[in-house]
Amino acid sequence: MDYYSSQISRLIEELSKLPGVGAKSAQRLAFYLISRPVEEVHTLANAMVSARENVRYCRQCQTLTDTELCPICSNPARDPRTIMVVENTRDLAAYEKTGKFNGVYHVLHGAISPMLGIGPQDIRLKELILRLQGDVDEVIIATNSSLEGETTAMYISKLIKPTGIKVTRIASGVPVGGDLENIDQVTLLRALEGRMEL
Amino acid sequence: MDYYSSQISRLIEELSKLPGVGAKSAQRLAFYLISRPVEEVHTLANAMVSARENVRYCRQCQTLTDTELCPICSNPARDPRTIMVVENTRDLAAYEKTGKFNGVYHVLHGAISPMLGIGPQDIRLKELILRLQGDVDEVIIATNSSLEGETTAMYISKLIKPTGIKVTRIASGVPVGGDLENIDQVTLLRALEGRMEL
Repeated sequence: MDYYSSQISRLIEELSKLPGVGAKSAQRLAFYLISRPVEEVHTLANAMVSARENVRYCRQCQTLTDTELCPICSNPARDPRTIMVVENTRDLAAYEKTGKFNGVYHVLHGAISPMLGIGPQDIRLKELILRLQGDVDEVIIATNSSLEGETTAMYISKLIKPTGIKVTRIASGVPVGGDLENIDQVTLLRALEGRMEL
Repeated sequence: MDYYSSQISRLIEELSKLPGVGAKSAQRLAFYLISRPVEEVHTLANAMVSARENVRYCRQCQTLTDTELCPICSNPARDPRTIMVVENTRDLAAYEKTGKFNGVYHVLHGAISPMLGIGPQDIRLKELILRLQGDVDEVIIATNSSLEGETTAMYISKLIKPTGIKVTRIASGVPVGGDLENIDQVTLLRALEGRMEL
C-alpha cells in the first residue's frame, strides 16, 4: 500500500483487522476518520481504550460491565430467584430489549462445543453452580437454538435437576411473522412438538 | 441502552457514528474490541489519532499524506509533466494499483455539483491551475463517470484548453469482463461512440 503515506496505510491496516471490515471498508473508514474534526477522533479512540481498560465481568452474573456488580444485578427491583442463562452479553441485551423479563441473568461466555474442543470448564458454568447455593426458584436456559446451544442446555439441565431447582428452556419454533414455506424442517418439527392447546 | 454498562454503551454509540456501521455491527465491534488484548486496542486507537493529527494535503498534488510532499510527488522516477486529475485519494490509489501510470496526480477532493451547491471554488482546482504554469505536457482527467464527474471534466477541459496544454479524458465504456446484457444503455452508447478501429 505504498500509494498511501505510512500513517494512512497503518490506519487502514489496523482497521481491516476488525471483524466484518474488508480492505475497501477499511479504506473508507480511514478516509472518513481523517476528514472528521480532531476531537471526534479523540472521543472514539478514548471510548475504545477506556471501555477495554475498565470493562470486566460482573462478580455475580459474569456479564461484561464497568462496575463490580452490573446494573441488573445491583437493581433491587429485579428478582434474583429467577436466573436466565445466556451465551453472551449481546443475548442478555436482546432479552432486556423486550422489557418483560424481571429476573436476573447468568452469562456463560460461550457454549459447549465438542467439535471446537470447548468443554464445560471453558465457559462460566462453575460460577452458575455457585449461585444456585443461594435462594433460586427457576433457571431458564436461553442458550441459542444451535447444536452448541442445545448441547449446553442439556448439560446444564442434567447438572441442576438433582438440586430440585426448576429448570426450563425457552421455546423453539416458528418466529413471529415467519412464513412457513421459508422455514427449515427442523424448526417446523420443533414447532409441532412444542404445540400448545388453544 | 441501559442494559449495557455506561462504558460499553458509550463505545457502541461512538462506533455506530461510523459510515456503514449500524447498531448491530457497532455492538459486534464493541464486544470484539473488549475481548482483545489491551495493547491491540491501544494500537488501533493510536493509529486513528495519529493519522488524524498528522495527515495533511500534499503541497503539490493535494492528496492526503503525512509528509509535506507525498511519496509520489517526491519520487524522481515519476514524470511531473503528465498530471492525472482525480476526485479523491482513493481514486488515486485505484490507478496506482494498476502500476502502469508513471505520471503524477492532482486530487480535487470532490467534484462540481450544482445540485449539491458545490462549485469550482469548493474543490482544489485553483491549485491545479497554478501547477500548469510549470512544465506540463498533458492533463488526463480521470474524474468519475457520473454526472458530477462529467461536469467537472468538462469545466476543467474548457479552463485548460486556451493554455495549449493537451487535455484528455479516460475512456468510458463496457468494463472488462462486463456482460453486455447487464450493462446500462448510457454506457452501451458511450462504448459505441468511443469505438476504435482494430
